[in-house]
Amino acid sequence: MTADNVHPADPATLTIGILGGTGDQGRGLARRLAMAGYRVIIGSRDPGRASAAAESLGGGLLISGAPNAEVALESDVVIAAMPWEGHRDLLASLAGPLAGKILVDCVNPMGFDGKGAYALPVPEGSAAQQAADVLPDTIVVGAFHHVSAELLLDPEVDSLDLDVLVLGDDRPATDLVAAIASRIPGVRGIYGGRLRNCGQVEALTANLVSINRRYKAHSGLRITDV
Amino acid sequence: MTADNVHPADPATLTIGILGGTGDQGRGLARRLAMAGYRVIIGSRDPGRASAAAESLGGGLLISGAPNAEVALESDVVIAAMPWEGHRDLLASLAGPLAGKILVDCVNPMGFDGKGAYALPVPEGSAAQQAADVLPDTIVVGAFHHVSAELLLDPEVDSLDLDVLVLGDDRPATDLVAAIASRIPGVRGIYGGRLRNCGQVEALTANLVSINRRYKAHSGLRITDV
Repeated sequence: MTADNVHPADPATLTIGILGGTGDQGRGLARRLAMAGYRVIIGSRDPGRASAAAESLGGGLLISGAPNAEVALESDVVIAAMPWEGHRDLLASLAGPLAGKILVDCVNPMGFDGKGAYALPVPEGSAAQQAADVLPDTIVVGAFHHVSAELLLDPEVDSLDLDVLVLGDDRPATDLVAAIASRIPGVRGIYGGRLRNCGQVEALTANLVSINRRYKAHSGLRITDV
Repeated sequence: MTADNVHPADPATLTIGILGGTGDQGRGLARRLAMAGYRVIIGSRDPGRASAAAESLGGGLLISGAPNAEVALESDVVIAAMPWEGHRDLLASLAGPLAGKILVDCVNPMGFDGKGAYALPVPEGSAAQQAADVLPDTIVVGAFHHVSAELLLDPEVDSLDLDVLVLGDDRPATDLVAAIASRIPGVRGIYGGRLRNCGQVEALTANLVSINRRYKAHSGLRITDV
């Protein structure tokens, strides 16, 4: 086998960690990425909760649980899936173990009130840019913002009908994350622009929430003509 | 015929005006809406330019040109398609004739530099919210942000492959604009949330520009599961 034959997103060569991965979004992504063949480690502050989340996803999948710092150290690609409230502090605390790695931020800074969901203002422009701000030695990519946790976790759903927009300033990293996303049946990973244009992609989740309410749907995006 | 049989977006009953409509976006929308059967008036500060733009779209379509103020007065639904730079001032100057009407804002506040397109910050949150700010007696709706002017104007393109997100706080108005959009072959008008969530829809145009560059495409959005 020559290097050309090794797909960069080859599941045999990559471990994917999910920081703050015990929520629905983290567990859903863990499940689908493990089903695609990746070794996945779910992270939490509480190792017991991390292990319980991994076990809840059933046998036969390569999913384990570990403390967040261990997940950062042992993974090749690390997904940030913690609640927005803890985003900056948790990532800043992991700057050391995340150095030199690819961090994939899927966090949507969002609020809810009587009128529904709305995008929260972020001083850095987006959660992904905040991550880049506190992780100067990490390559930050934004992706997986619009995937429905419910569909990710639904055992009846074999294939997802959506494109994952992948944003970042490092071409090999965005290519790799797009290729990883594309390994989930039905999903296409598509380059969606530089990190400075990630805020609106995160914020658009509030629109999808509104669409879901109006049309009783689990809406997603497809990009046409690509 | 009973009232139930009259579609609210019936082309026989509606005149659509396009303020600042001599640019590619305005002319493209004028062309497609006229092809859908609507009477369309293209507006400009310069009536000669407005008439020339209308004539450039060819015969057989109900398109005329007029000064912006006359367009605002004579139309039932008015699309704002001026450049972002003149957005606030032009709309503020038309607050009188636009009172009681529906204004559909399709303006994308966007900048370009060596790294491509990026979303410009808007103090009011979005162009549509700025319009609502200067037009207190007008119902403002955001829509038609992501349609490619090139495709709208291309005589070889019979059907567009995209959904038009329609945003606003007035249900009959967003329903009407969605129904108007849906009269363009291939297009579905879909409710996309309240006006406070319009900024990210406008800003997402910068991402579509990036996608177009990377994939040599005229990209658009489709909403899945709706």
